[in-house]
Amino acid sequence: MHEQRSLTMNALTPAVSTGPLPASRKIHKSGVLHPQIRVPMREISVHPTAGEPPVIVYDPSGPYTDPTVETSIEKGLARLRHEWITARGDVEAYDGRHVRPEDNGFAVGERLTPEFPVRNRPLRARSGKAVTQLAYARAGIITPEMEFVAIRENLGREMLRGTLQRDGEAFGASIPDLVTPEFVRDEVAHGRAIIPANINHPESEPMIIGRNFLVKINANIGNSAVTSSMAEEVEKMVWAIRWGADTVMDLSTGRNIHNIRDWIVRNAPVPIGTVPLYQALEKVGGIAEDLTWEVYRDTLIEQAEQGVDYFTIHAGVRLHYIPLTVDRVTGIVSRGGSIMAKWCLHHHRESFLYEHFAEVCDICRAYDVSFSLGDGLRPGSIADANDAAQFAELETLGELTKIAWAKDCQVMIEGPGHVPMHKIKANMDKQLAVCGEAPFYTLGPLTTDIAPGYDHITSGIGAAMIGWFGTAMLCYVTPKEHLGLPDRNDVKIGVITYKIAAHAADLAKGHPAAKVRDDALSRARFEFRWEDQFNLSLDPETARSFHDQTLPKEAHKLAHFCSMCGPKFCSMRISHDIRAEAQKEGMAAMAAKYREGGDLYVPAEESGAPLMPEAHELS
Amino acid sequence: MHEQRSLTMNALTPAVSTGPLPASRKIHKSGVLHPQIRVPMREISVHPTAGEPPVIVYDPSGPYTDPTVETSIEKGLARLRHEWITARGDVEAYDGRHVRPEDNGFAVGERLTPEFPVRNRPLRARSGKAVTQLAYARAGIITPEMEFVAIRENLGREMLRGTLQRDGEAFGASIPDLVTPEFVRDEVAHGRAIIPANINHPESEPMIIGRNFLVKINANIGNSAVTSSMAEEVEKMVWAIRWGADTVMDLSTGRNIHNIRDWIVRNAPVPIGTVPLYQALEKVGGIAEDLTWEVYRDTLIEQAEQGVDYFTIHAGVRLHYIPLTVDRVTGIVSRGGSIMAKWCLHHHRESFLYEHFAEVCDICRAYDVSFSLGDGLRPGSIADANDAAQFAELETLGELTKIAWAKDCQVMIEGPGHVPMHKIKANMDKQLAVCGEAPFYTLGPLTTDIAPGYDHITSGIGAAMIGWFGTAMLCYVTPKEHLGLPDRNDVKIGVITYKIAAHAADLAKGHPAAKVRDDALSRARFEFRWEDQFNLSLDPETARSFHDQTLPKEAHKLAHFCSMCGPKFCSMRISHDIRAEAQKEGMAAMAAKYREGGDLYVPAEESGAPLMPEAHELS
Repeated sequence: MHEQRSLTMNALTPAVSTGPLPASRKIHKSGVLHPQIRVPMREISVHPTAGEPPVIVYDPSGPYTDPTVETSIEKGLARLRHEWITARGDVEAYDGRHVRPEDNGFAVGERLTPEFPVRNRPLRARSGKAVTQLAYARAGIITPEMEFVAIRENLGREMLRGTLQRDGEAFGASIPDLVTPEFVRDEVAHGRAIIPANINHPESEPMIIGRNFLVKINANIGNSAVTSSMAEEVEKMVWAIRWGADTVMDLSTGRNIHNIRDWIVRNAPVPIGTVPLYQALEKVGGIAEDLTWEVYRDTLIEQAEQGVDYFTIHAGVRLHYIPLTVDRVTGIVSRGGSIMAKWCLHHHRESFLYEHFAEVCDICRAYDVSFSLGDGLRPGSIADANDAAQFAELETLGELTKIAWAKDCQVMIEGPGHVPMHKIKANMDKQLAVCGEAPFYTLGPLTTDIAPGYDHITSGIGAAMIGWFGTAMLCYVTPKEHLGLPDRNDVKIGVITYKIAAHAADLAKGHPAAKVRDDALSRARFEFRWEDQFNLSLDPETARSFHDQTLPKEAHKLAHFCSMCGPKFCSMRISHDIRAEAQKEGMAAMAAKYREGGDLYVPAEESGAPLMPEAHELS
Repeated sequence: MHEQRSLTMNALTPAVSTGPLPASRKIHKSGVLHPQIRVPMREISVHPTAGEPPVIVYDPSGPYTDPTVETSIEKGLARLRHEWITARGDVEAYDGRHVRPEDNGFAVGERLTPEFPVRNRPLRARSGKAVTQLAYARAGIITPEMEFVAIRENLGREMLRGTLQRDGEAFGASIPDLVTPEFVRDEVAHGRAIIPANINHPESEPMIIGRNFLVKINANIGNSAVTSSMAEEVEKMVWAIRWGADTVMDLSTGRNIHNIRDWIVRNAPVPIGTVPLYQALEKVGGIAEDLTWEVYRDTLIEQAEQGVDYFTIHAGVRLHYIPLTVDRVTGIVSRGGSIMAKWCLHHHRESFLYEHFAEVCDICRAYDVSFSLGDGLRPGSIADANDAAQFAELETLGELTKIAWAKDCQVMIEGPGHVPMHKIKANMDKQLAVCGEAPFYTLGPLTTDIAPGYDHITSGIGAAMIGWFGTAMLCYVTPKEHLGLPDRNDVKIGVITYKIAAHAADLAKGHPAAKVRDDALSRARFEFRWEDQFNLSLDPETARSFHDQTLPKEAHKLAHFCSMCGPKFCSMRISHDIRAEAQKEGMAAMAAKYREGGDLYVPAEESGAPLMPEAHELS
């Protein structure tokens, strides 16, 4: 990995992390229905002595980890979807809205982030057309995006067909052995999955969020009034996807929101989400009461033209729900939710988001911006979990889902929060029932309040569980939660923690290909292929450096022990001795001999025995 | 917190971490049945403006955090249980076994750890007597240890009686509103709980391990042949209990095992566990095949005389189970299990631990050493989870439990390992059925193999879940798992992670007092009492330092925001504005007004509303 400084005349162009992860190369699989598509994956090679094929893993890191591609932050990524979009013949380019000083919080001079150097005319739907993946899916069309996603979700698992053991508890989810483009279309058509892909974000590599696909994770970035800058935020985005974030939300609340977002979206190979209300609030000088539908509408269009792929919209914070939060321990913990609640109370009026929801839909359907229906009344403490305010809002989100679907808008539903373990499943069950199986997208949940500084862990527990129960995307939490804005290091820890949660969920759901990586790593571990163990892990650098803290020499990477137990006590080394001895003796015969002579106990039937793939099954 | 260097003529006396945690003081509650007992707890004070009482939390850190007590490592802790033990009139002192060079791995000169300066004559049961807490419990006796534990488990919750809301899912566990000494006696008598308290470890502050009590955690320390020393290990023990470890296992496998253990036990206010097989192996020069029952028996007595409170004994690794591991991905991952398997295969004989189990019981009952029946065949990878080898051993552990109980020995059962989430509950259910409800003591389990470097997290997920399902004690895992011996920092991270898992489990089980701390911290958070939020958390230093990374000034601790959102966007600050406005308006009236005028939606019944204790209920 090396950091690459782009050639530029602008001294402020951010340096981002590039280069492949260890033992990894970027591979691409081509489409069949759509031969022009090239779906990226990451192939991790193991030592030749292992006699094993490379392991293919899902890869959201974009061209930054492809050494054959030269990225240039001030140019942005290649607009790979542009032709797919224009070929559909249902969009038109137009002169977009012009940037105004309020879009950047009235920043001027040195405090104003430079504009992104490249400007494209935005696209929007031709009159009367619906340009969403949902509309296409309902019309029976398999778009390039849908085939892209199908190939991506398969991860080469067609190689394992026939040797796949389905072993999991999916709680009613329907995960196929093999994902076909038609399966994708059907899931999207029914609203059970979304492909967030704004027509103005052609740089994005399509991905899918849905209960019957791999569990996804989101990383939050963005500045605040107190700290951070465009350069840091662009690097955080690249850094987050390097470690596995599937989408990134730009939650900036400081100055320069518009310009920062441009730099992010133009360089993001993953979907970008926002909360438009933040920028709307900045435009009215931070006075919630001064928000208006007009300012908000203008912000939606501004962000849709930039290419934001999904909007968090707190349209479920209705006036008459607000009293339900008065006796809560932690009130309203959602920024957007608290802002809307303040507006409603001040004006004694129903939420303008709720009242104008149909018009919001009209905007989203013209650009294919997906809804992330916000959980403004989510619980921010164990005490408030599953309370009336929270579930009242969820009921409204279900109602709004139907409205959005009627207008061909893609929808996912946001969820909690802080929820003790015994109350987690009820959240999933209720959301499935009330929201028509639209994908669920939770923040954790945190399973206890008592560990600020470690809330990636308190929430990783809840996230793994709710992912297992059916949640489609997990929004990460970093060690800085409740304490301050996360830095780059926090972003990495949050991402790795949530990759763990998502993968543990995939395993528990019985996703057919999930176990491949665990097994490959465990074989490497057992065979003391230390480098392979590190390279197959979620964070090879950290694994290697932890090992090297006590055994740093290269020769140690061949050692059949580590410093935990030393050479005499390493159980894996002893296990190898045992197997060697057993083979000499003929283990089965020995077992029979001593079963006859000794105890009459008959071992229980073997269940869950590991599947060691034969070479021919992998070709 | 400050480090105190003890006055000593021995330059090697370890320096350990002492001093109270922030805003904390050690309090003691006295016994009623046994007035001489003084049960330690930790009281965390909050800012006077809060108008709230201090929060009392469980405290295993011993005298090291009591500024009124001067600790001296080369003198050891006060022998607080000595009179309780001798008063029972059923033990005798005798000349113990002498230390031999092989006990310390034949270390000499500078390589030999100095002996602990104080030597006491060991105690053992008078002929025919059983001196275990189980024997006393069955005889209807409530020992000082039992009352101590009852008071400790209550944490002052009698204050909350009448306002406690039982809210959880305990899967058949029976957690009382109030723990009485009689309840403790009954649980111990039935084998559902153990109080590990060797008569030769009178320094220990009694604690209880059982499904119907607070979930406990264990931290592993100990050197290996590759690294670490007595000074580091003693400090690790003090450090681990400072952060919340309820027991500590000394898993040393290098030299000086005997002398290191003396320093640890004499200074440990918590139960100390070991795996005697490790030292036995050292005595035969590391050649597993040279182990004998005689060497092992000698080691049991040696360690029982020193005061080890529980022994991990892999008596379930039977000869005819070993073939069941041959096709595993990671073989046998337990050190003890692999050693026994090697011995069995080499000698073509049944395990000497299994064959001599009754004699092991005779030794344990004479000192009250508890059994931790080892899971030598636990799965070390997702692929091996819940396989025939693992469950065959569990059946044998159930059989051995009955034998041990018949001899009045206290027993807990060790468990996995690596288990995907959907297979975790089956482990708990099977263990309950097969082992007569003896306490379960698991290592994690890890819910995926793919994240070495983060296995405290992969396992924290499984540990929280299995704790919720009924596991009584969770053995921690540190970030160094699979990679090397943990250092002091790893120990802390492992302990905090497992405190999170145990507490999340207590909450989910509906433990009546668990939520007190979450609520107090969340109120502090909501009211911007930053210092209180830090002080109430599991790791106040880290919480404070994370906050201070972006807002370091003292004035910032009064700020109604942090750098995550800044002053304009802090949802909690806005929530306060909302409440102020609502009070002016009369929120209930407003809600009624708009319900009439607007939507006919009737909010769902309030469930789980937080209980804000009134002042009078807390006095």
